[in-house]
Amino acid sequence: MSINKNTEFSFLESLRNDFRLDLIGDDCAVLPRSEDTDLLATTDTLVEGIDFRLEWAVPELLGKKALAVSVSDVYAMGGSPEYALSVISVSKNLWKDDFASRLMTGMIEYAKSVGVQIAGGDISETRSDASVTVTVLGSAPRQLAVPRSGALEGDHIYVNGTLGGAGAGLKLLESGARIDNSDPGIRNLIQKQLAPEPSPLAINRHLVDAMIDISDGLVADLDHICTASGVGAELFAEMIPIEPDIERTGFDRGKALEFALRGGEDFRLLLTSPSDDLENIPGSELKRIGRILSKSEKLSIVEEGVRSSLNRKGFEHFS
Amino acid sequence: MSINKNTEFSFLESLRNDFRLDLIGDDCAVLPRSEDTDLLATTDTLVEGIDFRLEWAVPELLGKKALAVSVSDVYAMGGSPEYALSVISVSKNLWKDDFASRLMTGMIEYAKSVGVQIAGGDISETRSDASVTVTVLGSAPRQLAVPRSGALEGDHIYVNGTLGGAGAGLKLLESGARIDNSDPGIRNLIQKQLAPEPSPLAINRHLVDAMIDISDGLVADLDHICTASGVGAELFAEMIPIEPDIERTGFDRGKALEFALRGGEDFRLLLTSPSDDLENIPGSELKRIGRILSKSEKLSIVEEGVRSSLNRKGFEHFS
Repeated sequence: MSINKNTEFSFLESLRNDFRLDLIGDDCAVLPRSEDTDLLATTDTLVEGIDFRLEWAVPELLGKKALAVSVSDVYAMGGSPEYALSVISVSKNLWKDDFASRLMTGMIEYAKSVGVQIAGGDISETRSDASVTVTVLGSAPRQLAVPRSGALEGDHIYVNGTLGGAGAGLKLLESGARIDNSDPGIRNLIQKQLAPEPSPLAINRHLVDAMIDISDGLVADLDHICTASGVGAELFAEMIPIEPDIERTGFDRGKALEFALRGGEDFRLLLTSPSDDLENIPGSELKRIGRILSKSEKLSIVEEGVRSSLNRKGFEHFS
Repeated sequence: MSINKNTEFSFLESLRNDFRLDLIGDDCAVLPRSEDTDLLATTDTLVEGIDFRLEWAVPELLGKKALAVSVSDVYAMGGSPEYALSVISVSKNLWKDDFASRLMTGMIEYAKSVGVQIAGGDISETRSDASVTVTVLGSAPRQLAVPRSGALEGDHIYVNGTLGGAGAGLKLLESGARIDNSDPGIRNLIQKQLAPEPSPLAINRHLVDAMIDISDGLVADLDHICTASGVGAELFAEMIPIEPDIERTGFDRGKALEFALRGGEDFRLLLTSPSDDLENIPGSELKRIGRILSKSEKLSIVEEGVRSSLNRKGFEHFS
């Protein structure tokens, strides 16, 4: 992860173009495995001071999150995670504490709960900030992994859970609140930031044209789908399932929508489908939130009948 | 990697025992892939200040080494590396330089030379030290990956190249020498430290009982084989192929042997076989350097007819 996703994106794009690394550019690399199965592979890192802070980290939850963000990438291809390899880098001081073993305990417990086996890893000393890097391997039926590039004009856009909780949780942590707060709503939002729980696709993959997980934020990740697919899109503000605890804990509606659009790290699935009634599939948890448009349409959001263009930096009302 | 391999080893062992992580404990995890192939997976990290220093790092060579150490793990199972995922963490200052792109350029060029495709990755900002973490996926014929645990009493011990060069190169770097030194011997040793080149097993795997790559050092890695296999071992000092440039550049014979035994990072294959004439197989580059003994025999080295016990810390002459 990076606080400058734009730069990372450009760098990876330039690498791909320069070196014809055709495998790069989706949530997971899709590699040949057997006659009927593809291998999915993805790796992510969480760095102290950038992705987490020791002052509020709970080592067990950090271990869970480090694995969850890569499990989420496998779910985002419609795949099943199977194995994980983890690299932990810690200072001598943290090593003397039980930070690393608590982190691994949290990772292993979460791994069991999602059917992942920890298959290997490495532990290193650092002179300074800690980090944890996890590679997850999974599988998908051959040539049926769901890319981010398949969205078609007219598709409906869905998300499989509430949004904004992780961003609001981060804001609360930055304001001094902690996971042991007495308010259950605040605890819930902080939990969503510290230990997100991605859910797999619970409907038939043939109903889905394109999919990505929401790590950078709804707008940024929808933009990734649009760029990869060569399409535009519109969101319907009133239909976005904003995490209810955000307003309950004192944020106003505008701030709550902003967390949902740009907070990031909710690790929900964002998908497009020609079907307009996926919400009715029991257990899917899907909410319809927008529509795929033609390439000529810029990303926009419609709220109370007013359309505003969405860019990755902020709002811009049509004049 | 860690400057405290003992601690890392104990931690991984304790994790394995506590959580029954049967997949951990060899150079690679061996995972089911298809009817006739197993998937090999390994991950390693290089951390600034621990595994490399910016004052002497050449970014392209660092990218090569970061991949090579994991390719070496795949070779150590008798496997073929196929794919790599890399995570680079750099500070804003290094990002402004072309450090990351030079590193990736070196990694990608080396990847091509060993038949590996870069399949994905992540780039993160850090507030402090840089690091590069690489996961390599490879394959081996089903159930024919060579473990470190298969050594049998009476086996002969072989290594597939010279030893000590990487350790001597590190010493030279610490003394102020650099890769552009005018002495070709010094350049060669520094090159071995900055950009090791592992070679795959060039003989039939059925001739090999146990194998590991020499990352921690000949003694430490032979100890890993002995512990995993439940055997002892003896080394013959005069038969160890010490990198000739070590003495040529001014180190004495005792120091050269010490680099070969404990310098580490040579990334040669260390293997055991019932056959005593593998040296004669063309292209194998194998040198016979010792013998596997019964479990009751401690690790020892014979030099000029005198046997000394070897422990992971140093020599101890038999009285």
